[in-house]
Amino acid sequence: RSGTKGKFTDGMELLPVFQDTHVMIFVGFGFLMTFLRRYGYGAVGFNFLLGALAVQWAILCQGFMHARVIREEKIHVTLTTLLNADIAAATVLIAFGAVLGRTTPLQLIFMAMVEMVIFAINEYLVYEKFKASDIGGSIVIHTFGAIFALGLAVGTVKRGVGGMTLPQKAPNYSSNLFSMIGTLFLWVYWPSFNAALAVPSAQEAAIVNTYLSLAASVVSTFAITIFDCIQNATLAGGVGAGAVCDLLRHPFGAIVVGSLAGAISTCGFRFVTPVLEKKFGISDTCGVLNLHGTPGILSAIASAIILVAEYLPISPYGQVEPSL
Amino acid sequence: RSGTKGKFTDGMELLPVFQDTHVMIFVGFGFLMTFLRRYGYGAVGFNFLLGALAVQWAILCQGFMHARVIREEKIHVTLTTLLNADIAAATVLIAFGAVLGRTTPLQLIFMAMVEMVIFAINEYLVYEKFKASDIGGSIVIHTFGAIFALGLAVGTVKRGVGGMTLPQKAPNYSSNLFSMIGTLFLWVYWPSFNAALAVPSAQEAAIVNTYLSLAASVVSTFAITIFDCIQNATLAGGVGAGAVCDLLRHPFGAIVVGSLAGAISTCGFRFVTPVLEKKFGISDTCGVLNLHGTPGILSAIASAIILVAEYLPISPYGQVEPSL
Amino acid sequence: RSGTKGKFTDGMELLPVFQDTHVMIFVGFGFLMTFLRRYGYGAVGFNFLLGALAVQWAILCQGFMHARVIREEKIHVTLTTLLNADIAAATVLIAFGAVLGRTTPLQLIFMAMVEMVIFAINEYLVYEKFKASDIGGSIVIHTFGAIFALGLAVGTVKRGVGGMTLPQKAPNYSSNLFSMIGTLFLWVYWPSFNAALAVPSAQEAAIVNTYLSLAASVVSTFAITIFDCIQNATLAGGVGAGAVCDLLRHPFGAIVVGSLAGAISTCGFRFVTPVLEKKFGISDTCGVLNLHGTPGILSAIASAIILVAEYLPISPYGQVEPSL
Repeated sequence: RSGTKGKFTDGMELLPVFQDTHVMIFVGFGFLMTFLRRYGYGAVGFNFLLGALAVQWAILCQGFMHARVIREEKIHVTLTTLLNADIAAATVLIAFGAVLGRTTPLQLIFMAMVEMVIFAINEYLVYEKFKASDIGGSIVIHTFGAIFALGLAVGTVKRGVGGMTLPQKAPNYSSNLFSMIGTLFLWVYWPSFNAALAVPSAQEAAIVNTYLSLAASVVSTFAITIFDCIQNATLAGGVGAGAVCDLLRHPFGAIVVGSLAGAISTCGFRFVTPVLEKKFGISDTCGVLNLHGTPGILSAIASAIILVAEYLPISPYGQVEPSL
Repeated sequence: RSGTKGKFTDGMELLPVFQDTHVMIFVGFGFLMTFLRRYGYGAVGFNFLLGALAVQWAILCQGFMHARVIREEKIHVTLTTLLNADIAAATVLIAFGAVLGRTTPLQLIFMAMVEMVIFAINEYLVYEKFKASDIGGSIVIHTFGAIFALGLAVGTVKRGVGGMTLPQKAPNYSSNLFSMIGTLFLWVYWPSFNAALAVPSAQEAAIVNTYLSLAASVVSTFAITIFDCIQNATLAGGVGAGAVCDLLRHPFGAIVVGSLAGAISTCGFRFVTPVLEKKFGISDTCGVLNLHGTPGILSAIASAIILVAEYLPISPYGQVEPSL
Repeated sequence: RSGTKGKFTDGMELLPVFQDTHVMIFVGFGFLMTFLRRYGYGAVGFNFLLGALAVQWAILCQGFMHARVIREEKIHVTLTTLLNADIAAATVLIAFGAVLGRTTPLQLIFMAMVEMVIFAINEYLVYEKFKASDIGGSIVIHTFGAIFALGLAVGTVKRGVGGMTLPQKAPNYSSNLFSMIGTLFLWVYWPSFNAALAVPSAQEAAIVNTYLSLAASVVSTFAITIFDCIQNATLAGGVGAGAVCDLLRHPFGAIVVGSLAGAISTCGFRFVTPVLEKKFGISDTCGVLNLHGTPGILSAIASAIILVAEYLPISPYGQVEPSL
């Protein structure tokens, strides 16, 4: 997932998936958080600042870890580097979603700086040491981001402050429409995000499976609760497909994963988040646990099942080689 | 227009046109319908649900018809399949535009299911049986969608219910701006939509001609009526170019088609829609007749004229082979 | 920068950068100007009309000048032609930003017609006669557009009329969010804009350097003034990188240019624009001087410094050949 090959020599064939991802990070994540009536402009603005800061810091953090792997002394910045940095910045923005409206700008910047370092080390361990199969980043991005975010949410527990009952935090008609801009751009470009760093032969499979998983999660979200969670749970299919989109051989599998992810996410928004907030005072403003956490874990489990069931029997020597 | 060649083997060169089309279907169509002050959020949401449902159903419906043509037993899902499904979903969303605000969710889902089956059969007849030249889908998508939509509108005639005079349906300042998000993304990406499934040698011609036709229809719309119809009639150039964008050899032709399409569409919004509604009680909420219907017919006529005038004389054996 | 090679034969590899640029011109510029509470819809609408008119007129104006250079009698319209026309239209929209809210539609159309002719002559002189290195158009687009715009602003001086104190021009909460749609799409796609017409070997360098410059200008804008200028000064990095993005060999240079551009632009918005308006009655509605003017001049100076310092010593014969 990190292939800084040389000095400006990756070529331009990555440009379309890079730009799709770039839109997701700055337009998608930014507008997704505008559902809070009074914090909408602040949400887009801080998403912009944190994203722009995180990508620069990510180039350094990922560069140091990568230089360690390939034993080079310089960090070469190519289109792949930018793509990796954009994807890394997503973890910071996921964590931002959980504490939205309850932090100062300086706290957010400190959070971004610390999280990126831990992310780069975790990414190195997962891909280089454990050799995990996680092309769309469901484990290293979404699950990691959600766990980090929940740690922050637990650390900032204050009864009543984070609650959605406060009038300045309640969504209104216009803020719901702004939020749908974020939802739709994330949903539309998610196939590119999951396929961005796949090997060329697996990219089309990653796109097709993520697309189907996303479509299925929209239907399962609407089936359970018309309109309540459509800004978020409809995206669970993208997270759910993350670790398996290059492994699934049949469209049916993608639709099953997407439907499950949408259903788990919707139920999380309806039953788990209110309990966390009322019983334990843990306020997860954007429902990061339900959008990135549980669908990310579902994806990791699905990935393990597929690798054991479908690929291991083929290769008796224990070499797992997904080649679609 | 339907080339499911093998298992994940179409390659990634289709990705840019696919993603442009994907944005049109979910962001473009969705936000285009937000001009109704109170139905905006519902319009985006149901557009999302219907689109996600339609693409999955389209993969099956188009797959069955295509399997019949190439005599295969399995439906292979590739990037081309997704592109075809997205384009097919447009017909459902066109029909949704005509009945917007006057149907229940279950009625919409039923409509989507039935329309897609009829669409797949019609598409098969037009392309495989009649061998029509309609690369941008002006006949099979826009004209078909508009006719289907008008059938629904006639079927749901209730005086006073669908009228724009009801306060909750009138546009307001903010809803007009949301609607422009839809208009602009449709307008900007329409060249990709029309060129998406053209043969490689005709793709650039399709893009250039559609671009010029769209630019011309913006100017003719503003010339006739400043600001009244800019959310819709400016797009008529894209529909008008649909069946001819790969046939036109000179930019002048594209500008003529676009100007005409914009003018016809604008006049339709100003004179035909109010009459239909007041005299006959037929309510076409988004003006589907004027955006997709008449420009689609214009495109079909223009296509017939060009084929007869320019291509037939060249080939005395009656073989029409547009090769730009 | 203008390579209309033949009849529909440029190929489709330009499509992604073309569509990114197309979004910037119509969605980006359009929504950037919606910050005025009452003029938002008009701004998007006239941006649409002027853009659509300008691209058609630009194809003719640039075509005449280009035909002079290559001594051909016909103007061939290809994807490169459309890309050049879109980029030329930016100058018209920059000038529109300076006089926003103080002109009639006919005045705007007249302005677009005249400006495009002067632009085409200036572009010819800069690229063909002076052989300037300005791949992202910081000189011919941004500085030229800003100077033309300021001329208009000086020409339309009326004390009190253009001032931001009038209630119908003040931004409100919702208009700020609409404006961020424009800011973010401009920011996200700017790397494609600057790289669009670079020679293939320099495209990736142009993208990486513009990306870093933009990220740096976001941070420097926020560092100086939290939230005051983020709709505009965050984009200064893109203008600043324009003339140097294919020349810079190290990421550090891009970050320096971006930080400086963001800082200069922010200070311009805070100190220069109010003085121009109060003391001299010159009203620059969108702050075109600070977004396109001073960062454009910065870019031209940086370009001259780099060419003298880094490239001239290598080539003792005076031939400046940037080959990254």
